[in-house]
Amino acid sequence: MIIIGEKLNSTLKAVRPAMEARDEAAILDLARRQAEAGACFLDVNAGMFLEQEPEILKWLIETIQAELAVPFAIDSPSPAALRVGLEANRNGKPIINSITGEKARLDAVLPLITEHKAAVIALCMDDTGMPETADQRVKIADTLIATLTKSGVALDDIFIDPMIRPIGTGSHYGVVALDTIRRVKAEYPEAHIACGLSNISFGIPARKVMNQAFLVAAMTVGMDGAILDPLDKKLMTFLYATEALLGIDDFCMNYLTKFREGELEL
Amino acid sequence: MIIIGEKLNSTLKAVRPAMEARDEAAILDLARRQAEAGACFLDVNAGMFLEQEPEILKWLIETIQAELAVPFAIDSPSPAALRVGLEANRNGKPIINSITGEKARLDAVLPLITEHKAAVIALCMDDTGMPETADQRVKIADTLIATLTKSGVALDDIFIDPMIRPIGTGSHYGVVALDTIRRVKAEYPEAHIACGLSNISFGIPARKVMNQAFLVAAMTVGMDGAILDPLDKKLMTFLYATEALLGIDDFCMNYLTKFREGELEL
Repeated sequence: MIIIGEKLNSTLKAVRPAMEARDEAAILDLARRQAEAGACFLDVNAGMFLEQEPEILKWLIETIQAELAVPFAIDSPSPAALRVGLEANRNGKPIINSITGEKARLDAVLPLITEHKAAVIALCMDDTGMPETADQRVKIADTLIATLTKSGVALDDIFIDPMIRPIGTGSHYGVVALDTIRRVKAEYPEAHIACGLSNISFGIPARKVMNQAFLVAAMTVGMDGAILDPLDKKLMTFLYATEALLGIDDFCMNYLTKFREGELEL
Repeated sequence: MIIIGEKLNSTLKAVRPAMEARDEAAILDLARRQAEAGACFLDVNAGMFLEQEPEILKWLIETIQAELAVPFAIDSPSPAALRVGLEANRNGKPIINSITGEKARLDAVLPLITEHKAAVIALCMDDTGMPETADQRVKIADTLIATLTKSGVALDDIFIDPMIRPIGTGSHYGVVALDTIRRVKAEYPEAHIACGLSNISFGIPARKVMNQAFLVAAMTVGMDGAILDPLDKKLMTFLYATEALLGIDDFCMNYLTKFREGELEL
């Protein structure tokens, strides 16, 4: 699994003050702990700071890469902020989080992807809005992948996000998400699927259990990336268990090691 | 999900003494609690009592059906014991647990199935032994289903058990199980898949988490029945969460109800 650590996000109340105060120690601690817990990429988001977003994003990236080599997922809908982040980055190939099929956003970000040889998370929505069905999502994914590969982006650098909607607002949205993942991964095995998981449980109680179950279900049908909290031991325990079940953990060695190290939450 | 409650089993150390002592109250308590927790069938197994097996199986069935209407899964490899259980049964259509593709066992049990209009759990193994691959399992399932339906058994009365082997003994056995479930359910949507879940985690630590993850994964690819402990609240919580994710719990009503009743273990 390609784990994108989600904690360095200005929308999180516990994290925002550290960004506001330019608290290097707090930011580095959060970066280091996520990396140690298995994050392959660190998502960095300063969107809540509005006009200060580019400046704080740059500070986040520079602060972290002074100490750690983990690559970034640079998280902004703003092409201007993305450009500042990409130009500051020295930690290897970053992921741009994100583009959609919306023409204006795609036209503005596509040159940044190719210029910086970045990977990219592409959300299954476009100018017609948020799609309702799996068919519509797969069609948008097809268009996004065609556009990206035509511009020279490798399939392996594309992460499709099926845009998960809460099952509390429609009983079918779990199946829609799982069908989209299964179909896109079958059609483009070299591309990746990366979901923000927790939206599935928005508005219902006992969210954590639902998120754990959805992680297992989504991995079972082909999701190979996720934006999640790697410091959530219980969630990571399910991730390791599912890797063992899916045969991508030879001899269950990683699961057994995590168990011995006390990293599994039972 | 068609839940077959597994607790009334003579191999369980905590349960065997109640059978040995013909403790009606203890047996009824275990039967009632499983039914209240969602068991659609009660598995009854007296196999550990050897020559006393038929007598104790009969006593179990008569004791339970005097008070409860839940149908039975009559659990024995012995055709003689199965016959005694089937003749004692008054609780509606039972499940015979189990047949295999082994010719002698199949020949002996098939007349019991048709005579008693029973449902049946059919294990994916035959006279060549325990199959290694999903291909071999699907082939055995094909043969079993052909034999059963030719004898007049309805697809809806057939539960295929893919014969789960521990991932601790082979990293591929999770994928073998999931592939078998997916393919058999796709080929015979009217038939059911019923697994004994816990074998997947035999010999590795943190078994409960692995069993929970496997339940979610197996349901995601089409398993619609399981032999499990319905008194295991955590496992049942994952079962309800997965039903909600798979769109078989309209408006998440069952999940929300179980939450309100304090039946979810978080």
